[in-house]
Amino acid sequence: MPKSFPTIRAFLWKKGSLLLLDQRLLPHQIKWVRCRTWKQVAKAITDMVVRGAPAIGCVAAYGIVLAARQKALPQAFEGLLKARPTAVNLRWALERMRQVSEVSRDLEREALAIEEEDRRANRAMGQLGAALLPENAVVLTHCNTGSLATAGLGTAFGVIWTAHQKGKIKKVIASETRPYLQGARLTAWELQQEKIPFELITDNMAAHLMNAEKMDAVIVGADRIAANGDTANKIGTYSLAVLARHHEIPFYVAAPTSTVDLRTLSGKEIPIEERSAKEVTEVRGRSIAPKNTKARHPAFDVTPADFIAAIITEKGVAKPPFIDSLRELCNSVPLAVI
Amino acid sequence: MPKSFPTIRAFLWKKGSLLLLDQRLLPHQIKWVRCRTWKQVAKAITDMVVRGAPAIGCVAAYGIVLAARQKALPQAFEGLLKARPTAVNLRWALERMRQVSEVSRDLEREALAIEEEDRRANRAMGQLGAALLPENAVVLTHCNTGSLATAGLGTAFGVIWTAHQKGKIKKVIASETRPYLQGARLTAWELQQEKIPFELITDNMAAHLMNAEKMDAVIVGADRIAANGDTANKIGTYSLAVLARHHEIPFYVAAPTSTVDLRTLSGKEIPIEERSAKEVTEVRGRSIAPKNTKARHPAFDVTPADFIAAIITEKGVAKPPFIDSLRELCNSVPLAVI
Repeated sequence: MPKSFPTIRAFLWKKGSLLLLDQRLLPHQIKWVRCRTWKQVAKAITDMVVRGAPAIGCVAAYGIVLAARQKALPQAFEGLLKARPTAVNLRWALERMRQVSEVSRDLEREALAIEEEDRRANRAMGQLGAALLPENAVVLTHCNTGSLATAGLGTAFGVIWTAHQKGKIKKVIASETRPYLQGARLTAWELQQEKIPFELITDNMAAHLMNAEKMDAVIVGADRIAANGDTANKIGTYSLAVLARHHEIPFYVAAPTSTVDLRTLSGKEIPIEERSAKEVTEVRGRSIAPKNTKARHPAFDVTPADFIAAIITEKGVAKPPFIDSLRELCNSVPLAVI
Repeated sequence: MPKSFPTIRAFLWKKGSLLLLDQRLLPHQIKWVRCRTWKQVAKAITDMVVRGAPAIGCVAAYGIVLAARQKALPQAFEGLLKARPTAVNLRWALERMRQVSEVSRDLEREALAIEEEDRRANRAMGQLGAALLPENAVVLTHCNTGSLATAGLGTAFGVIWTAHQKGKIKKVIASETRPYLQGARLTAWELQQEKIPFELITDNMAAHLMNAEKMDAVIVGADRIAANGDTANKIGTYSLAVLARHHEIPFYVAAPTSTVDLRTLSGKEIPIEERSAKEVTEVRGRSIAPKNTKARHPAFDVTPADFIAAIITEKGVAKPPFIDSLRELCNSVPLAVI
């Protein structure tokens, strides 16, 4: 019988405190960090103890539950919103929690609902996305979009996981995703645990493999999707989209509608977080460049909608023109649970 | 007065032995390795103590000088040729040494000539290439092609260095060049020593910067150029060529004619070295992926001639169709020393 739940969890709400698996230490060390205050949650998001747009949304919601107990809701709404700028799921979850806070004291129930909905969304995206892949598929994915990035199976990873359950995956190509190495550290670890065949590559090998070997699809997650379909995602995504287009390989985005920001009209309006240069000049604490090297670190890039074959959401698959299909999907009722 | 010589040397022939700057330890440690036998030279090439196609050619020539003293020429010609498969300068230098060995005992003189010619070729390419760049140029380069990769100023790096001397360089974008990090470790170090303004990026940031900021040219070296212009170079080069084409940025290759292999008709015939997966799953001795992760490591890729705006050699600038221009240049006499 196929599994319907992954074994890895990025966060656990337990006995009124939030446990976060410290993703900075993976895959070499399993360490849980306990957050008892909203400030600890905000810092964990900023410091990337937890990352992945949907996971950040869920975790921020629990941060608000903690803040309510601290009688610090106004500061928490403000402070958590600033924890990271690009992923819109953070704002989305905080706005949901704020609306509930205005009419009810049961914030915990709303946070649990956000988590459960994300889990269901993952399952739905998995089914919808797997149907897009051919048999015997070789699929490239970037960054980490699995259980560590969401409440459930994952977004792009959930599609791969579901397709694997259906016997459709020949192998996954996981790009290591410099500078933070989410592909090498996190996706490789999840793929290994789920026994999905894969090969790890450096980001700059993707074009060579697209040209010299078989590749059927590129599938990635998203941190924010603008109303027109422009998609902000981990740095390197835009590069893969251009390369996929050149090699005539379909490029898919998988993300719940909580990642779609209809208020952001195009990718130009999406703020791109610039993180520390040290994350480029050091790898796992070791310097890889001369002292005082000036390095760049845009943590995300924007892929214009034009490069995207389809956006897989939990409510259906959006196709171009996304300005119409995304609005329609976002305003539709959820699909019956798959 | 402009400098005409760099301060960094990759190798030194001194008192009958060959000193190699151990590039695996740069930029954190300066250590010279002394080779007294051809086998030590071959191992140093295989292990990447020394790398860079022109430098490998020069060093192999000195390996033959050592082999002659060991009365081991046949083994040395065979063993050195196998040290690394892709860079054709190795074969080119060994064939030159073999021809001399058949008529003369003065192998040292030929090795010195190979080195001196490479140094002159670097200067000529520098002048010819710098003329192709606009004023105030932002130039992206990949891997390392400077003094550490050649006998002199470098190939692509020599062009940048010369353009900088002429005041034409606004800044260099150095891609870190995973997995071996020649960009972060070696090019950043050379740029710093030469006081050329630069920013280090991860390889997957190139497309984002091409799209979001100013970039005037991409310039790379080569390990082997086929008769039709198809160019084997460090993994990631093909990716940059496709991205440069998409963003309408000229893509240049700088390499001496010793890198042009007229006997290889197209890129399809160029052997691509597949190195250890460990060089991908470990960075500077530290694991970045789960145990037993299967990783790919093609060390080079092939950029089809169609993506290349010009190939800068010491004898002139080849333009498409390269099948004609390269043959003509290779058969021409050297330019007067620039």
